[in-house]
Amino acid sequence: MNSFGRRFRLTLVGESHGEMVGVVVDGVPPGIPFGPEDAQPALDRRRPGQSLLATQRQEADLVKIRSGVFEGRTTGAPILMEIANSDARSQDYAELRDKPRPGHADHTARVHYSGHNDPRGSGMFSGRMTACWVMAGALAQKALAARSVQIAAHAVRIGHVWTDASLSVAEIRKGVEATPARCAVYGVAQDMVDAVEAARKAGDSVGGVVECVAEGLPAGLGDPLMDSVESLVAHALFAVPAVKGVEFGDGFAISAKRGSEVRDEYVVENGALRTKANHNGGALGGLTTGMPLRFRAAFKPTSSIPLTQQTVDLRTGEPAELRVKGRHDPCIVPRAVPVVEAVAACVLLDLLLERVGMEGFR
Amino acid sequence: MNSFGRRFRLTLVGESHGEMVGVVVDGVPPGIPFGPEDAQPALDRRRPGQSLLATQRQEADLVKIRSGVFEGRTTGAPILMEIANSDARSQDYAELRDKPRPGHADHTARVHYSGHNDPRGSGMFSGRMTACWVMAGALAQKALAARSVQIAAHAVRIGHVWTDASLSVAEIRKGVEATPARCAVYGVAQDMVDAVEAARKAGDSVGGVVECVAEGLPAGLGDPLMDSVESLVAHALFAVPAVKGVEFGDGFAISAKRGSEVRDEYVVENGALRTKANHNGGALGGLTTGMPLRFRAAFKPTSSIPLTQQTVDLRTGEPAELRVKGRHDPCIVPRAVPVVEAVAACVLLDLLLERVGMEGFR
Amino acid sequence: MNSFGRRFRLTLVGESHGEMVGVVVDGVPPGIPFGPEDAQPALDRRRPGQSLLATQRQEADLVKIRSGVFEGRTTGAPILMEIANSDARSQDYAELRDKPRPGHADHTARVHYSGHNDPRGSGMFSGRMTACWVMAGALAQKALAARSVQIAAHAVRIGHVWTDASLSVAEIRKGVEATPARCAVYGVAQDMVDAVEAARKAGDSVGGVVECVAEGLPAGLGDPLMDSVESLVAHALFAVPAVKGVEFGDGFAISAKRGSEVRDEYVVENGALRTKANHNGGALGGLTTGMPLRFRAAFKPTSSIPLTQQTVDLRTGEPAELRVKGRHDPCIVPRAVPVVEAVAACVLLDLLLERVGMEGFR
Amino acid sequence: MNSFGRRFRLTLVGESHGEMVGVVVDGVPPGIPFGPEDAQPALDRRRPGQSLLATQRQEADLVKIRSGVFEGRTTGAPILMEIANSDARSQDYAELRDKPRPGHADHTARVHYSGHNDPRGSGMFSGRMTACWVMAGALAQKALAARSVQIAAHAVRIGHVWTDASLSVAEIRKGVEATPARCAVYGVAQDMVDAVEAARKAGDSVGGVVECVAEGLPAGLGDPLMDSVESLVAHALFAVPAVKGVEFGDGFAISAKRGSEVRDEYVVENGALRTKANHNGGALGGLTTGMPLRFRAAFKPTSSIPLTQQTVDLRTGEPAELRVKGRHDPCIVPRAVPVVEAVAACVLLDLLLERVGMEGFR
Repeated sequence: MNSFGRRFRLTLVGESHGEMVGVVVDGVPPGIPFGPEDAQPALDRRRPGQSLLATQRQEADLVKIRSGVFEGRTTGAPILMEIANSDARSQDYAELRDKPRPGHADHTARVHYSGHNDPRGSGMFSGRMTACWVMAGALAQKALAARSVQIAAHAVRIGHVWTDASLSVAEIRKGVEATPARCAVYGVAQDMVDAVEAARKAGDSVGGVVECVAEGLPAGLGDPLMDSVESLVAHALFAVPAVKGVEFGDGFAISAKRGSEVRDEYVVENGALRTKANHNGGALGGLTTGMPLRFRAAFKPTSSIPLTQQTVDLRTGEPAELRVKGRHDPCIVPRAVPVVEAVAACVLLDLLLERVGMEGFR
Repeated sequence: MNSFGRRFRLTLVGESHGEMVGVVVDGVPPGIPFGPEDAQPALDRRRPGQSLLATQRQEADLVKIRSGVFEGRTTGAPILMEIANSDARSQDYAELRDKPRPGHADHTARVHYSGHNDPRGSGMFSGRMTACWVMAGALAQKALAARSVQIAAHAVRIGHVWTDASLSVAEIRKGVEATPARCAVYGVAQDMVDAVEAARKAGDSVGGVVECVAEGLPAGLGDPLMDSVESLVAHALFAVPAVKGVEFGDGFAISAKRGSEVRDEYVVENGALRTKANHNGGALGGLTTGMPLRFRAAFKPTSSIPLTQQTVDLRTGEPAELRVKGRHDPCIVPRAVPVVEAVAACVLLDLLLERVGMEGFR
Repeated sequence: MNSFGRRFRLTLVGESHGEMVGVVVDGVPPGIPFGPEDAQPALDRRRPGQSLLATQRQEADLVKIRSGVFEGRTTGAPILMEIANSDARSQDYAELRDKPRPGHADHTARVHYSGHNDPRGSGMFSGRMTACWVMAGALAQKALAARSVQIAAHAVRIGHVWTDASLSVAEIRKGVEATPARCAVYGVAQDMVDAVEAARKAGDSVGGVVECVAEGLPAGLGDPLMDSVESLVAHALFAVPAVKGVEFGDGFAISAKRGSEVRDEYVVENGALRTKANHNGGALGGLTTGMPLRFRAAFKPTSSIPLTQQTVDLRTGEPAELRVKGRHDPCIVPRAVPVVEAVAACVLLDLLLERVGMEGFR
Repeated sequence: MNSFGRRFRLTLVGESHGEMVGVVVDGVPPGIPFGPEDAQPALDRRRPGQSLLATQRQEADLVKIRSGVFEGRTTGAPILMEIANSDARSQDYAELRDKPRPGHADHTARVHYSGHNDPRGSGMFSGRMTACWVMAGALAQKALAARSVQIAAHAVRIGHVWTDASLSVAEIRKGVEATPARCAVYGVAQDMVDAVEAARKAGDSVGGVVECVAEGLPAGLGDPLMDSVESLVAHALFAVPAVKGVEFGDGFAISAKRGSEVRDEYVVENGALRTKANHNGGALGGLTTGMPLRFRAAFKPTSSIPLTQQTVDLRTGEPAELRVKGRHDPCIVPRAVPVVEAVAACVLLDLLLERVGMEGFR
């Protein structure tokens, strides 16, 4: 099913080369001031064609809000938002119906949908579907901001270039747009730009890691065990194409440590219970601790690269060569930054609604 | 909510120091031969007190099947399975109501449940709840085995000791029980045992990583985007206490690579479409590829260590010292191995049921 | 939440006087031939302005399929269908923001949405939202027809005019369109037309009952207890505005009988187990029996009548008089007939998918 | 699936002749004082063997609370409650595996579960499963009472004896236990007792109708359209064996009326908006109006009657005669009264939790 969320729920619609891609958002608290101007900035950050680091497909990605908003405020009814597909070049995809691209969903989608899936531009398996998260996330961020929850993400790795700086929301926001790499550490970001450029010139691609921080969350959000805050965030992140790993706090690195090295001991600061360190990334027992929620998502390098690749012609069962056409991103990571923020916003608003109900948003 | 699964659904009940911990499994295909003897072996692998690597709490953990099985076969009705709690020492926990343990759910649970949660043995936040997954997983594995799906897991890291061997189900099964570390690479496993012993003697703990492989899956399982196979597996894994990271295939390592290095090119072998490598870990576009599904879960070192730790006395708001009593695991990883297998089995059976319906299991 | 269905799931969007009303249908089996020509006939039956028995609002209600169909077949991706609102007269509703109409959702919606709901044409509380069911139902009926499941409904009561004829699908289809009353018993239908006319001329409205029959269902569909076939059908029917009662088989009448009078004894006919009578309406133990599923939904008379009514001015808390403007149906029942068929189709396809999975529709 | 509820969720377990029947209740607000003494009275009202009007099966039905309660209060963790089966006589059912009883789930269950369902005492299709609702409902009523919501039900029809009195909660409570018929109108109740006695002596059974009223509900509860208050209540009621019809307010009778006859005009009373009449039964637009929620459920006469009935021997496909053994109720209605109250309580608490969240119950 193409829905996610329990109380703030997204349902995705559309396909890469159909008329549009869109999202229905249900469970929206009524009365939130919201218009296209709130969603467009994040969409512009995700939009193709922004820089040489991204695909050269040209899409304006202008959001249309088609329901659920009246006189500038959410009504509580489902909100349908959509962006048009205007620069689709479906002819680039004709060959792929019979020659599945390595690293893509071509083959698995064909099996899952018995060959009936829309192959143009990967249909609903396209990275373009992440624009849906961005639209919904803009709405969620508007609702969260009114309750002082702030979210920001940036690239902490692109290829072999990385940083272990642990930045705050304010620090990320200050630096993230300084380079097209969307890493808030300026020197590192410059090296990242070079790494993407080198890959692009070599007809190759690179992967990377996005780190996201959410501040201002109350303690105790989440449903222990089955719907832990980590479970819900990870569920949503793995719904983003190209994500291959998710970790919270020290993540995989914590598994190499001793317990004495990664203690989050309690202290009282300004009357509030806090932890001295935050190795657990703001979650304990599946519930938020009140410390910043910090997590990372690993993105694989774009599979669509101009190099000739080996595949199979499904009509004959014989080996075949494939040279992927179309306009693809040499590195998806900078465009993924607003997507990760949006995912976090949607999940955290959902958890907050569990806590305070619709009445809590009056 | 304490349920997980769409068609094969678990609901957890019980608490660490109450009468029992148990699980209700719904959506069970009827007619599967199943009895206590099917669930007991996996429970025995998870049981406390197995070796010096684990907690010395003594629990027989004998499974009782209380509904849904008639004349040795599942009826299709919900199955309630439970194990008794017999060696609970609740007095060890009295102090913790006011002095939250660092790294534990004591504080977050208190906030979430407004102070009404059962504090004895961490209540439902105890690692003991993972026995529920093991019971349900035994049932799922029985159903999957009849369709030739095989699942196995082992430890690939404990503290600083690790292996990058990529083993098959058969290889894991052959070696995993050779040492109490439950790593199927014998030499590495011996070092892991030493690492745990060293930590235990130092009054400390170590973390680790469990890798799991599922073979025999058909291609095309999963719901693209929102309920991708990665999303569902990660959701369930992050419902296991102490998990801080999840990755598929090359995972975080893939993010440092170029696209040309991590291609999974297609070939035909014995008439079946396969990929030469499996960097994507058996999932593309959120759907299974038909290659082995391979993923890893990172576990943090046990937070309950005998060292004195800093905390806060919630009655006074003043700093306090805490020395955690009770019998705790110096390393949770070996006992987590059957839990990870169980999680995988439950999720994969759920996906298979989506594909073939109840009739597919006749 | 504005979604219904477990495997075949509808999410409603839009509002009566916004741009459009629409529905996202998820869980669609791939490969079903489907186009606007499949949905339009049912929409035309529900459309306003068909006859003097219905509202004179003029809407073409031409369906647009905006995603999920490629080369004339469903792809398996969510399908967004919508119809435009072109003849909305929102000025008719200005007064109602402060003077809630008796029998309408004006007041309850205001409370539920803290005053932010869209009041124009009742927003999403409008009967116009039932067009969403009709669009989704057309798709469901296409999928069901391929499996020999046939559904038909007609009016069995309008005001004081009623019939207790128990017709088959073929009988209903033969007669239902003979009069604008949509009752398949011709003489009764003529009296129904008179009853509506009389009410309309008196500035009044009448209620009625729709009976629906589904034939060709296999035995055993449904989930016993919690998701019984009756539970799901009733859940969906009570989501249709103006429905105040739902009954299966002999329904309320059965409660006045003795057990010996309403036995459905078994016989074998042409090798198949059948019941001699069908007092239970094709459902036993929450599961289909293989006999025709037969149920009725009671609709209240339209609340919007031209008579002056008593209400309260919410600004002052003082009594006020209200004369509802706008173009309303003197009897909603004839237009409800295709809605009830659509509801049945959506629920029954959902149940069938539970049984056979996506593979069952290959 | 055997679960119901979105925020306050029941999962049923057990079977009529297994060890026990039970219910897991999830989403329980923490801190509610609750113990066996709160659930036992309602169970005693549903218990078999209370009077000659009910089955003579003897069960103590003593509730055991096995999790989720600590120091006399709910912890927020799932609560497992169960009652033992002690007086099961499974030998009475041996014949039914091959000769399905008319009016029972024997045949449909056999098909649904491919013959693997537990046939003893109808397994989970037994009316005994309604004890699960009663246990959960007792908890829900405790939570609701703290928010001044009161629920009461009574029989308004048994066979040909009926009343159209529209009683308040106080009036129902005052009179409902005066006779074993559980009708709060004394004279009518005496006639009902006679009607059941007459049927019992004739080796027959009778049906009836239960009316339920909930007072003290705030306006605006429910989710419009898909999860309307009527949808959820009806969904749950049709999960109760033997229910064949559900109606709200004037129900089916309203469909025979003109709009001018069934207006619920608004007035202000003591500063609150109320309606003069309550033809809509306390729900408009799928949301509560703040007036009493009033609904009725129609129960069919018990199918298990001592008369010889026609069926089919499934081994041979030949006609066969069946004389149902076992101890059955000549009329289920009096025992259904606490079940209907419990269903209402569970659904209404769920809706209230949507409104105010967990925090609303602190």
